[in-house]
Formats: sequence, structure tokens, C-alpha cells
Amino acid sequence: MEAAGITYRDRARDDGVEALVDDMERRSKSDEFAPYAPPYLVERESGFGIAQVAHIVTWLTDRHGLGAGDGSKDLHLIQLQLTISDMVAEVHNVHHPIAGGLYFDDQKDAAIRAAEAFREERIPKFFDHFETALGICDGPFVAGTKWSHVDTSLFQLVAGLRYAFPNRMAAVESDYPRLIACSNAVSTIEGIAAYLASDRRIAFNEDGIFRHYEDLDPA
Amino acid sequence: MEAAGITYRDRARDDGVEALVDDMERRSKSDEFAPYAPPYLVERESGFGIAQVAHIVTWLTDRHGLGAGDGSKDLHLIQLQLTISDMVAEVHNVHHPIAGGLYFDDQKDAAIRAAEAFREERIPKFFDHFETALGICDGPFVAGTKWSHVDTSLFQLVAGLRYAFPNRMAAVESDYPRLIACSNAVSTIEGIAAYLASDRRIAFNEDGIFRHYEDLDPA
Repeated sequence: MEAAGITYRDRARDDGVEALVDDMERRSKSDEFAPYAPPYLVERESGFGIAQVAHIVTWLTDRHGLGAGDGSKDLHLIQLQLTISDMVAEVHNVHHPIAGGLYFDDQKDAAIRAAEAFREERIPKFFDHFETALGICDGPFVAGTKWSHVDTSLFQLVAGLRYAFPNRMAAVESDYPRLIACSNAVSTIEGIAAYLASDRRIAFNEDGIFRHYEDLDPA
Repeated sequence: MEAAGITYRDRARDDGVEALVDDMERRSKSDEFAPYAPPYLVERESGFGIAQVAHIVTWLTDRHGLGAGDGSKDLHLIQLQLTISDMVAEVHNVHHPIAGGLYFDDQKDAAIRAAEAFREERIPKFFDHFETALGICDGPFVAGTKWSHVDTSLFQLVAGLRYAFPNRMAAVESDYPRLIACSNAVSTIEGIAAYLASDRRIAFNEDGIFRHYEDLDPA
């Protein structure tokens, strides 16, 4: 939304977490749309609501004419976005391998083992896939010179992994020149550059999906 | 596809796993579509390929006119399908909490803890959500009297969870009458009934996502 200049209000930040929980509770009792979990987006004029990150960005792409202008390419972009979602879910599982409801310290031993497999096997496997996808067009973006929801998600993924696994990322980044070039190109999109310099950009922290724990990224 | 009478060939079964691996390798080196992982579907006439379960069923729905006939409702169905995907990923994490590349026995202690949280917290949370969604229309399906990809996926989810967690499912099923009614209704769809009675229906086993290990579902 920042890249496309779509205005929005972040209700979780503006109104607080309790208001968000109340809103979800109210929606789950209505006879209409209900999200399973945040994030979800509600269109101001229509009241239409939608959840699931890959679904939200796909819907926004459609609604605001941000697609590649080619049905097959747009479908390929959705597929890549779903694969990004899978990798993000694995990032979360690394620090919470046993259960999302337990503290990190209560599953730290398992997390250390999960992190090793994630660093050694999963990062290269996912990155190989994204690097290949970025090679189909001439770049810097997956669909060529026009950015899409996949590129902005790849940017966030790279940024998050640099925060969570700085040692591992420093070791592998040179193997993925297209991915890094894509990430750099996203950071210079006018709306994204403004967003990154604003207080709307929340710093990565240990309450989010991308968390830095030294034990999970040894030097 | 079985419910809708769409003919297909299961290439992984017909041609074997090696042929599948070769096909994926070839696709990853082409300048077109490439799946990150199975399953993926290739349309015979067009050669168009698509991966990611939620994406495949959404595309099939569109392509074969199987939607609810209402844009908002179809979007709601996709959202539910993505939430089913999330639950299925958690089912896999229960028996492989540390890494997909390690044997179950090498992560059994972690799996036992993960299974407890999944049985006690995650099954009710997801099922509550599906039960609520099934209450919006009069049933037996999410969109009313017409089945959708969400209903067939809920059927498979219930069947898989009954296989993997028979004790837990026996204890909770009566709390979710709409979910069980939906699952029963799917099993009587003509194409599904024929499929279930055929050798195309592969029995659940310990190589799949839904696995039964007694330690993960104590009596």
C-alpha cells in the first residue's frame, strides 16, 4: 500500500491491541466475513473485509490495477507469494517449533536444532527458487521493470532474515545477486523509501515473526 | 476434481516419483512456470502449470465455473481455504517440529510436546473458526447447498485428523456438528463417493501429512 500510494489506517497501532481483539470477536459473531487471525484489511467505503497476507495483497493488486497485465503472469506471482508465506511460517516455527503458545525459553533447545536446519537447508532451497523466478525476466523485479506484491514481500523477507540471521545472511547473500538486487530496487520505490524513513516503519523486534536470538545464528 | 468430474492423470502415481523430480528439475530451468514443491497441476491443452494447493483449487474453481456466483463469497472461500492450508501445515509440524529433513524418531520428544499443544489448543481454535463459517448459511456446505473447494478440503482435513488423532477427535467431534455434517455431506457427493470406493483413494499412511503415532494421541 505504501508503494502504490494507497491510503490506509493501521488500526492495531492507532486503536491498540484490545480494540483489535474486540473487533475480531465482533466479526466472528456476525453473519459475514471473519478473519481467523490478524492481519486483516477492511475497505473503508464498502466495509469489505479480507484476511491472509497472500490473499490481501492479491486482492489489492486486482482492486487497484497493479497486476502484470497478463493473467498467467499474475497467477505465477500469486504462487510465488504463497511460497513466500510458507517461508515466513517456517521463520516463525524456528523460534517456536513446539507451540506458538509457549515462551521461547521453554522450547529453546528445539529452536536451536530447528534453526540449524533452517539456516543450512531451507534458506538455500527457498532462495534458489526465488533467484530462479527473478531470472525469467530481465529484472530488477520478478515481472521485469514493474514491481509487484512479490517484490515488496521479498524485500521484507530479506530485511527480516538479515535481522534474524545476520551471520547466515552475510555468508549466503553473494549467491543470490538477483534477490539482493530486487530487494535494493524495492527500497528505492518512492513510496517505500518514504515509508522506511517514517515512524510507520516499525523496527524488527522479539515480538514479531523475525526475531534475533544469538543462539539461533551462531557466528 | 473428482467431485466436479474433471478428468485428470496423477502423474506422480502413474509415472513414479523419479519422473516427477525430473519434471520439476526441467521446469526450474525453463523460463516459464516452476513449482517450489508438489503438488502442481498442468492443464493438458494449454500446458499452463500451477502450484500451491489453495491456488490450484481456486484456479480450478474459476476455470470450471464452480464458484458461489458472488465475488465476495468466492473471496471468503479462498480465505477459508488458506486457513485450512495453515492448519494442514501445523499438522505436518506436529510430527516434524524440528525439521522436515530429519526422521520422526530424531525429533520424537519435541513432537510429543507439539502434539499436546496441537490437540488441546489448535484443534479447537481452528474448528471453532470453521464451525462459525459453516453457520453463516444454512448448510450443509459453507456456501449453502452448493459444495465448494472449502468443503472438500474440510472433508479431507476431518478424515486426516481422525486417522492421526482418533482419541482426540472422538472427544471433540460432538462440539462441531456443522463441521461433521459438512464432512458427511461431502462424502455423499456422487464423484466423491465413487472416488472413495476406488483405488485412486490412497489410504492414509506414515509417509503423508496425516500420520498416526500413538505417542502423539494418547488415550
